[in-house]
Amino acid sequence: MKINNKYYKTIWYSANTCFILDQTLLPFRLEIIESKTWRTTKDAIIKMQIRGAGAIGAAGALAMAQAAIEADPKYYQKYIESAKNEILLTRPTAQNLFDCVEKVYKSALNSPKDAMNKALEIVNKIEADAYKIAKFGAKLINDGDAILTHCNAGWLAFVDWGSALAPIYFAAQEGKKISVFVDETRPRLQGSRLTAFELANENIAHTVICDNAAATLMAEYKINLVITGADRIAANGDTANKIGTLEKAICAKYFDIPFYIAANLSTFDFTCLSGKSIPIEQRSPDEINFIDGIWKGEYISDILISANSPAFNPSFDITTNNLISGIITEMGICEASALKLKELNIG
Amino acid sequence: MKINNKYYKTIWYSANTCFILDQTLLPFRLEIIESKTWRTTKDAIIKMQIRGAGAIGAAGALAMAQAAIEADPKYYQKYIESAKNEILLTRPTAQNLFDCVEKVYKSALNSPKDAMNKALEIVNKIEADAYKIAKFGAKLINDGDAILTHCNAGWLAFVDWGSALAPIYFAAQEGKKISVFVDETRPRLQGSRLTAFELANENIAHTVICDNAAATLMAEYKINLVITGADRIAANGDTANKIGTLEKAICAKYFDIPFYIAANLSTFDFTCLSGKSIPIEQRSPDEINFIDGIWKGEYISDILISANSPAFNPSFDITTNNLISGIITEMGICEASALKLKELNIG
Repeated sequence: MKINNKYYKTIWYSANTCFILDQTLLPFRLEIIESKTWRTTKDAIIKMQIRGAGAIGAAGALAMAQAAIEADPKYYQKYIESAKNEILLTRPTAQNLFDCVEKVYKSALNSPKDAMNKALEIVNKIEADAYKIAKFGAKLINDGDAILTHCNAGWLAFVDWGSALAPIYFAAQEGKKISVFVDETRPRLQGSRLTAFELANENIAHTVICDNAAATLMAEYKINLVITGADRIAANGDTANKIGTLEKAICAKYFDIPFYIAANLSTFDFTCLSGKSIPIEQRSPDEINFIDGIWKGEYISDILISANSPAFNPSFDITTNNLISGIITEMGICEASALKLKELNIG
Repeated sequence: MKINNKYYKTIWYSANTCFILDQTLLPFRLEIIESKTWRTTKDAIIKMQIRGAGAIGAAGALAMAQAAIEADPKYYQKYIESAKNEILLTRPTAQNLFDCVEKVYKSALNSPKDAMNKALEIVNKIEADAYKIAKFGAKLINDGDAILTHCNAGWLAFVDWGSALAPIYFAAQEGKKISVFVDETRPRLQGSRLTAFELANENIAHTVICDNAAATLMAEYKINLVITGADRIAANGDTANKIGTLEKAICAKYFDIPFYIAANLSTFDFTCLSGKSIPIEQRSPDEINFIDGIWKGEYISDILISANSPAFNPSFDITTNNLISGIITEMGICEASALKLKELNIG
């Protein structure tokens, strides 16, 4: 997708270097991290310089392959195992990360070259699957639709296209007139910083709202479809996604508005029978009490914006399957229930 | 209530001056505006230096009385009428403002002295009513309760005590152990700036959360009561309050958690048959795209925190009566329905 009319991907590998668009600086500054070691790639996940379900998977895969290349042949297996464990610890809720890193680790047991080939194959597949999600999901979108999305599940959260935003991009390319309401998504504002930035660069009509305003827009018939991404989907369809997704899903149910999840199959974790087994990442209260931004043309951070009281900052919540109209995957749209997942042959 | 263990009220009148705690600077700086003219008092409402249902009513009453005192006797009636209209335009959703200003205006038709006496009577009544709300509401609170509140409906939103926080203060003084979850309340952060500041100064256990996190806390049985304030209540019990209240009410209903509104009778508007007739104030998109705070010890404002896309910023939403367990008033707790309001003799 485009930034200032130039095509970008969030992450790519070339000349022994992993290139990463630094998302902590967007939309204010466009900087690309050149990571020559697996530790730098892993740290980019921790610092959320790369974030979003698919992009974390891609970065994890490349970090794992970089570790295999860097490993001293004498301690090869010990080294890659320890690297794997460190990479898996970066974001505890992200299923794509586990799935992608495990796959590359298995190839790394053969050779570093196999590991890198596997990682590149995974990165390509994430992009290809996103395009399939775009096509399947676009069928849900009608001309004139006003769609609510939460957080950023656009191309920045993947390698390209995205999950929740992918169908919107596809529908727009088909010529459908759509408008998007963007939850700003506190605390880290991935909505007003990343989703709004993506949509502006793709020339799609959009309006940012506070996370508090979605229900009143639903009550006034101004939203007729909700699509969000997912960080992990349990075997019964319960879905972990950015904090606030549950509130939007409850409100959508109350106002009888379809609520869809868009996610590639790497996001499914069949070892979690329900959402109750999905671990929820707790992040620093500083994300609530402090913020960063642009002041007098300069990027500044750690601005105190509150009374600095104790804060509780879970990064994700669980939307139970009864609230989800369907899950848009690269294999089609399935119901958020164990049975229907099986019917799709993905159980 | 207290700031740094010293007693304050939000607004008081003495020596021909209206004193106003500047709430746009809290919790960062404690400054008191000395307003010697009705226009300065009125501007303090527009700039939200004084905000919150009861405090707006008190400020409006005092501004109206100041206008009567300042009026040239030659054009007295024209002057006070024009002042009244300007004061009423400051915040279109606030019912207390209309109610209080109309009452002072009627007294002003007799004399400036009558107007000021009426205004001071109103200010005292707002404080006395808040104390009654505190007592009635505290009966709903049990030892060990975890209470969610939205925005600031504490003493800063009134003259003293508050509406939604008043029962919490009373229950705490009775020795009940309670904890409060505070929605930060974007865009203006009245929760994390004002409510958290109040609760910290009163030594009440509290935790700030993003507006996105309330539903997950409800799902995990960490919240067992919700109390918010109100800016206007229609004849059928539909309630206009800070944007986001509707989402909390829908989620509370979904999780079967009692949801109460606390408001004095000045907040009721029996000319609005339902919430559909309540005008909703639309505020600047800048409140979403920009923020202010403390950086390197200095207060700075207009920090760009988003992609600066178009934003929609309604300041209030309507919570329909079916979502409200009851309304805590200075006359007792009533059901949010026309019938029960009448039974309380306030219809």
